[in-house]
Amino acid sequence: MMNLIDTMDLSLTEIDGLVETALDIIKNPEKYAESCKGKKLATLFFEPSTRTRLSFEAAMYELGGNVLGFSEASSSSTAKGESVSDTVKVVSCYADIIAMRHPKEGAPLVAAKKADVPIINAGDGGHYHPTQTLADLLTIYRRIGTFENLTIGFCGDLKYGRTVHSLVNAMSRYKGIKFVFISPEELRVPRHLREDLDISGISYEEVTSLENAMPELDILYMTRIQRERFSDEDQYQRLKDSYILTVDKLHNAKEDMAILHPLPRVNEISVAVDDDKRACYFEQALNGKYMRMALILKLLGEKDKTEEKIETVSDFVCRNKRCITSCEQEIKHEFRLADKAKNIYRCIYCDKEPKK
Amino acid sequence: MMNLIDTMDLSLTEIDGLVETALDIIKNPEKYAESCKGKKLATLFFEPSTRTRLSFEAAMYELGGNVLGFSEASSSSTAKGESVSDTVKVVSCYADIIAMRHPKEGAPLVAAKKADVPIINAGDGGHYHPTQTLADLLTIYRRIGTFENLTIGFCGDLKYGRTVHSLVNAMSRYKGIKFVFISPEELRVPRHLREDLDISGISYEEVTSLENAMPELDILYMTRIQRERFSDEDQYQRLKDSYILTVDKLHNAKEDMAILHPLPRVNEISVAVDDDKRACYFEQALNGKYMRMALILKLLGEKDKTEEKIETVSDFVCRNKRCITSCEQEIKHEFRLADKAKNIYRCIYCDKEPKK
Amino acid sequence: MMNLIDTMDLSLTEIDGLVETALDIIKNPEKYAESCKGKKLATLFFEPSTRTRLSFEAAMYELGGNVLGFSEASSSSTAKGESVSDTVKVVSCYADIIAMRHPKEGAPLVAAKKADVPIINAGDGGHYHPTQTLADLLTIYRRIGTFENLTIGFCGDLKYGRTVHSLVNAMSRYKGIKFVFISPEELRVPRHLREDLDISGISYEEVTSLENAMPELDILYMTRIQRERFSDEDQYQRLKDSYILTVDKLHNAKEDMAILHPLPRVNEISVAVDDDKRACYFEQALNGKYMRMALILKLLGEKDKTEEKIETVSDFVCRNKRCITSCEQEIKHEFRLADKAKNIYRCIYCDKEPKK
Repeated sequence: MMNLIDTMDLSLTEIDGLVETALDIIKNPEKYAESCKGKKLATLFFEPSTRTRLSFEAAMYELGGNVLGFSEASSSSTAKGESVSDTVKVVSCYADIIAMRHPKEGAPLVAAKKADVPIINAGDGGHYHPTQTLADLLTIYRRIGTFENLTIGFCGDLKYGRTVHSLVNAMSRYKGIKFVFISPEELRVPRHLREDLDISGISYEEVTSLENAMPELDILYMTRIQRERFSDEDQYQRLKDSYILTVDKLHNAKEDMAILHPLPRVNEISVAVDDDKRACYFEQALNGKYMRMALILKLLGEKDKTEEKIETVSDFVCRNKRCITSCEQEIKHEFRLADKAKNIYRCIYCDKEPKK
Repeated sequence: MMNLIDTMDLSLTEIDGLVETALDIIKNPEKYAESCKGKKLATLFFEPSTRTRLSFEAAMYELGGNVLGFSEASSSSTAKGESVSDTVKVVSCYADIIAMRHPKEGAPLVAAKKADVPIINAGDGGHYHPTQTLADLLTIYRRIGTFENLTIGFCGDLKYGRTVHSLVNAMSRYKGIKFVFISPEELRVPRHLREDLDISGISYEEVTSLENAMPELDILYMTRIQRERFSDEDQYQRLKDSYILTVDKLHNAKEDMAILHPLPRVNEISVAVDDDKRACYFEQALNGKYMRMALILKLLGEKDKTEEKIETVSDFVCRNKRCITSCEQEIKHEFRLADKAKNIYRCIYCDKEPKK
Repeated sequence: MMNLIDTMDLSLTEIDGLVETALDIIKNPEKYAESCKGKKLATLFFEPSTRTRLSFEAAMYELGGNVLGFSEASSSSTAKGESVSDTVKVVSCYADIIAMRHPKEGAPLVAAKKADVPIINAGDGGHYHPTQTLADLLTIYRRIGTFENLTIGFCGDLKYGRTVHSLVNAMSRYKGIKFVFISPEELRVPRHLREDLDISGISYEEVTSLENAMPELDILYMTRIQRERFSDEDQYQRLKDSYILTVDKLHNAKEDMAILHPLPRVNEISVAVDDDKRACYFEQALNGKYMRMALILKLLGEKDKTEEKIETVSDFVCRNKRCITSCEQEIKHEFRLADKAKNIYRCIYCDKEPKK
């Protein structure tokens, strides 16, 4: 492994290793102050995401390295029609490691196949955002002390919220996990995710009331209802305020419940909640920096680019307009056999099934 | 003090200290070359201002530190509806000190109340711009050798020019100062500023002719007539060229008068004046860098965030649309008693009186 | 010489020196890792060019220096009406060397006349782009081992492609060079360039078929047909695919021919060609970084700003709308005698003849 495209690329042992490194960085920052001296991180943000970009930059600086890059596509060669492959091929000449954010699903995987340096997915459309999940995991570990035997509530936009899907997948690998999905009907967690949980025999329930769910939660993961995920403005306006966390609603929560939020928040958590000791969304941002430091160290430390060979077929065409295959030049469409019994293939870039 | 929101937050002793540090930096730059090693400055520019941003960045690099941030709001989480409070709370995780520019008045004060690190106001709308004033002060000191017994002319847009108001306030604290305000009727210095001078018994006159005023001036502070301050394009076109400084107009000026300008200039000073030894607006830019270095050192050196406690009331609502209270979520409107005799209250963020 | 405006400002000896330094950097990078410690490069990009900007930034970081600047004009004071002269005068206070990209021809020359620090032209409209040419030269030298006795094909947009014109001029100074210009009729190399070659007695031919020209080429320089150079969208659509290099077309090329391209490419070279060992356009990007490192070292190493005095006259007015004289305030129009016999004068900024 020399790239990070999805959290699920990491084994539990690797995640433990990252957590351990992060904890050591927190304890002994001076030990790491020159770890990346003379190294350069490129932050290629084809769409803006200040928080994530600044977190990566702070991480690299605290390791003694330097940073270059761009913060939106209008400043990049993409505006001139350059492919993602070419961009990262060239940036490989300028940087030792690349953090890439891109509106198209699978773009970082395309990059990983071409670049001569490690690629970190810093978010690809509504698809993956693994370093956010790493931040979430460190926050859970630092607050609760374990990844096992936890009841985790997710509240808000569970349909489009990629951070939710990603953390559900990541936590599903631990013992004794129960999920409580709290959302309006329109924003329920996607069927495929529920099916995966069913198959794995993981306990979960779906409810609509935040307050009823509250007492049993060890972790409450709040999410923003993002305007950009709605095609219908009315529906957005009607739903956006539905699941707001206020001080009142916390009255029956556990004393040591941890409140997480990937940020930015708009108004889904009242500012008054910030002073509650259960609130840990700002800690979460700090933890994101430490996990990114640990990740950069790990990826730069691994010498060989040993790409995992997956068998793929190219008998289909991916029709997902949000997939990088929809715009990258001369890209081979590739599919992996996702479910042998049902003969289901999925695009290796966006995980969608090909249209027949 | 651990923030700089307005120049008037600084005592005369503190200003003397900054000037002294700046002079020492100029003399012994190598002494400071690693003063901020391992430290990070965040430049949060919610509206663009290249000159100010680059000056801060150069300052931090010359102190051996690093820089991260954004140069306009479109690249920031604000576009997603995040509050200033949340942004700085998160950026506190990534940086040791923050320089913030924001179109709304009072935004840096909001930031200062929330951030865990020092905040420097790098300009908040038409309100304050203290580091520009610090640059002006160092320039006066280096050119004239004193802050006392000076006749200071201000020319151009004295109504909207915040750098003018700020320098007038800063210089009003020294002995033997006389101001000459040179402007068209439409752009006279605001009444409240004249009233303040009257109350303090400080000498000033208002004139319309630059040439008549010239002979008595020790300092001539030119300002740009900014298009963005006018709602009426015609009025702008008619006035913008009114008060242009040319070589000719300098014929009766003192030999050692200092010509200042906050820059950027459009055409209010003829390029031919640049070669005159009295011109010191480019020196002023350089001095701005040194004062920012001194300021960063001072703020990072102060360990405790001892916030000055001002008594405030919340009985009113601020209706100023340019005030940060107009858009920040869940912000408490607070007012300080500005004039006990007249029972005048002012918003702590924008200094405007509440509408009754 | 303390600026680089055009490749032709460099003597052959100076180019040899830069190549030598670049080769030494490649061999012993650690020797240069702190060469520019404490120095700052300003990248002033008045129009975006990610590749060039990142290459300069990587170069400066690998020399141990720091970088500040902006990546598009909207973030700069230009939006407020500031002249290029003033911008660079101020940035001279913040940086030790400036790399400038500007949409107007001659802007870097204006900058060089005012700045107190070295200026590197990082592209001025369709005019010069000397560091690209330096990248091309190092690539040729590293691949072929010599600058002499070469047959060099240029393919694509030879009318507007400034990298072509620049490399033709640069290579014309070596012995035994032959050019083959491969383009559609509409995009032929400009007449003035052909006339210059005629006068210098340099061998060249113009052809329309890439395949016919292929066998004799030592170097094939492909170029992008840029949409922004066409006023007519139809013409662009008809021509853009005309001269695409595919694996097939390489069947009769020399074994050790070098394929160059200034990048970004859109589709003028098939991705399949990337795996051919003759392809060296990604190497070229890497070489660009090394030549920029060599150039920064050279310019910072030269103490005195000894400006070459050219005799100029100001009897004419430059009417070229793409020339910096069309917008810079109070700029003196200057012309040099380009051809004494024909009494031809050319603007020192854009090289165009004045309209009579």
